[in-house]
Amino acid sequence: MFQVNENYLKLPGSYLFSAIGKKVSVYSQANPDKKVIRLGIGDVTQPLAPAIIEAMHQAVDEMGKAETFRGYGPDLGYGFLREEIAKKDYQDRGCQIDSDEIFVSDGAKSDCGNIQEIFSQDSRVAVCDPVYPVYVDSNVMAGRTGDYDEKAGVWSKVIYMPCTAENHFVPKPPKEERPDLIYLCNPNNPTGTTLNRDQLKVWVDYARQVGAVILYDGAYEAYISDSDVPHSIYEIPGARSCAIEFRSFSKNAGFTGVRLGFTVIPKDLKCGRVSVHGLWARRHGTKFNGAPYIVQKAAMAVYSEQGRAQLKEQVAYYMNNAKVIRDGLESGGYQVYGGVNAPYIWLKTPDGMSSWDFFDWLLERANVVGTPGSGFGPSGEGYFRLTAFGTYENTVEAIERIKGLRRP
Amino acid sequence: MFQVNENYLKLPGSYLFSAIGKKVSVYSQANPDKKVIRLGIGDVTQPLAPAIIEAMHQAVDEMGKAETFRGYGPDLGYGFLREEIAKKDYQDRGCQIDSDEIFVSDGAKSDCGNIQEIFSQDSRVAVCDPVYPVYVDSNVMAGRTGDYDEKAGVWSKVIYMPCTAENHFVPKPPKEERPDLIYLCNPNNPTGTTLNRDQLKVWVDYARQVGAVILYDGAYEAYISDSDVPHSIYEIPGARSCAIEFRSFSKNAGFTGVRLGFTVIPKDLKCGRVSVHGLWARRHGTKFNGAPYIVQKAAMAVYSEQGRAQLKEQVAYYMNNAKVIRDGLESGGYQVYGGVNAPYIWLKTPDGMSSWDFFDWLLERANVVGTPGSGFGPSGEGYFRLTAFGTYENTVEAIERIKGLRRP
Repeated sequence: MFQVNENYLKLPGSYLFSAIGKKVSVYSQANPDKKVIRLGIGDVTQPLAPAIIEAMHQAVDEMGKAETFRGYGPDLGYGFLREEIAKKDYQDRGCQIDSDEIFVSDGAKSDCGNIQEIFSQDSRVAVCDPVYPVYVDSNVMAGRTGDYDEKAGVWSKVIYMPCTAENHFVPKPPKEERPDLIYLCNPNNPTGTTLNRDQLKVWVDYARQVGAVILYDGAYEAYISDSDVPHSIYEIPGARSCAIEFRSFSKNAGFTGVRLGFTVIPKDLKCGRVSVHGLWARRHGTKFNGAPYIVQKAAMAVYSEQGRAQLKEQVAYYMNNAKVIRDGLESGGYQVYGGVNAPYIWLKTPDGMSSWDFFDWLLERANVVGTPGSGFGPSGEGYFRLTAFGTYENTVEAIERIKGLRRP
Repeated sequence: MFQVNENYLKLPGSYLFSAIGKKVSVYSQANPDKKVIRLGIGDVTQPLAPAIIEAMHQAVDEMGKAETFRGYGPDLGYGFLREEIAKKDYQDRGCQIDSDEIFVSDGAKSDCGNIQEIFSQDSRVAVCDPVYPVYVDSNVMAGRTGDYDEKAGVWSKVIYMPCTAENHFVPKPPKEERPDLIYLCNPNNPTGTTLNRDQLKVWVDYARQVGAVILYDGAYEAYISDSDVPHSIYEIPGARSCAIEFRSFSKNAGFTGVRLGFTVIPKDLKCGRVSVHGLWARRHGTKFNGAPYIVQKAAMAVYSEQGRAQLKEQVAYYMNNAKVIRDGLESGGYQVYGGVNAPYIWLKTPDGMSSWDFFDWLLERANVVGTPGSGFGPSGEGYFRLTAFGTYENTVEAIERIKGLRRP
């Protein structure tokens, strides 16, 4: 009789955002008259920029004519896009990244989830706590995380690096245990906080010293406003030999429903004589078949002069929402973090409420959906995430509603 | 020091089609005056049908307006598409498949490659020989295949089921070893041959008897013309409790560069009390983020009256090419198989030439690219695959060139 991958059975409950979705759906069905405002999941609401729409129409037309039709694209992405990314996202910022070190994919979530697969089964994994659940869950599925302690909400073999208000959300390199893979997200999801150049340098130096790989999630790069926050880990000397970077078009260009991302693996990243770059290329060739031509053409518009100007406005729109949330909650007596270089606001739940109690309270009383901090890890308990990706009108209304509540 | 997944290092050479691509590229660069005709990789050449182009333009426009913009879609696919698939591909053919048993993805290659992950590490895998390389390579990466015997071209722990002219390309259930996972592709890639209902029933009965799962690749379903060849494994009684089916929009609708496929996991497929359906849903939720809205809308046009009529013509176009290849090669004295219910023609290399020798000979003398049968497994040695996916003009020219060659 066939057997299933028993590591899957160790996963507690369902994926965080599916669980929230179900709760909201139950509430909405029971209260059809209530207008629920969703500031939970990090999904964008603004339509695609005109330059992107135009590029997509053109690409669709190309697909409809024999002379310009494109079938299977290159597994690793079209050269035109890989070159544009290498130049505009890296070389123009002084980072030495070549186009053949860029792997175009259907999104950063897929890449973040799949990357662990090219590393050894017994790799030790270190994550910030709280953390984007995909990093941990994908390693659970691979059997790397040991046993789950349901009460503590932690896995026995995962190295957790707490990030709380007490340490200003800056993770410290582990001292007692030596990780092989270190997941870092900067600007951070869920806390909305950042590591500056000096703080990131500590990590690059540490990774090189202990022989670890940093899996660097830069999905929120477009929201950086402070000049001392690096836009890429490759701005830090030495990162080419110890870091993989994930990037997304979802948040800077509204591609959440369009699907595109990329991963950078410098050729200097090696385990002995084995090139990690080559392994990931082999995975792409075997388990992936390239991103859609139309979508890759759309991404080109993200880098055009017109596209850049339009997207700058879009980012500003969301960051204005972030300011509305920050200022509103602060004036309502809440302690808030993030929201300056990131589209996430991380707030302390009032009066010691648990994250899920606050979730229920906010859903029922204000009909506002956020994400319970404890869903991101035990150190997220007592925190709550709101996103700036709503419409301006909904954001204002949600904050007014929250401010109008009598604190529990 | 971090370590890599050493199973990757066991993989011999590179992915078959990358290897061919490189050989062709070297030849073309050295002979820029030669017009190379590619009938190697299974990529389509006809442009997308007008109904699909129209649907895509509409969807692009929706993405450009706030009222109709779509962000993250459901991980498992939009309800509208899952329902259409369940009805038109299954219920209308008398198969009991519900829409929530359909998982929409970015393509059948990804799904075929990833599916092994939800099964136990020590699962025994059975494949036809010759076989689509992804089935084997993805299991190599997972460490299930034992050691590679370079001379024999086989993995010590894989159960091979030879399919050659001698057994009319019909695989026999293994007797001495008991597989947990059985990959079947019908109509078959690479041989272009098929299993009829009775032959497939043998497999369903066997899988149920030994407790194995059939991983059924139906990517070429649209090319079936004989009425005794099943369009889905769920036409066979009992398949709901032992089979997973993969389907693609690449070959029936020209989506090779658009990227869309789906996987069917009936809820009756269980290991004890564990639902395989639930595991795959969890994987989708963790390592995938849905297929593009625009592409899912395009797929809807595949099922419209207009779209169906247009695609029927497209399939007929390619199957006419298949006839050109079959008839041409037969009149040139070649022994050919397939090409009736599938867009692949599988030919016996002349005079005992090896598959790669024939590849080189054909490339150099006729400037025609095919795929060496041995690239699909040891029993493919002495065979060669040509595809019907070229243009009519190129197909005719390629066959004329081959017929004009003096046999080696």
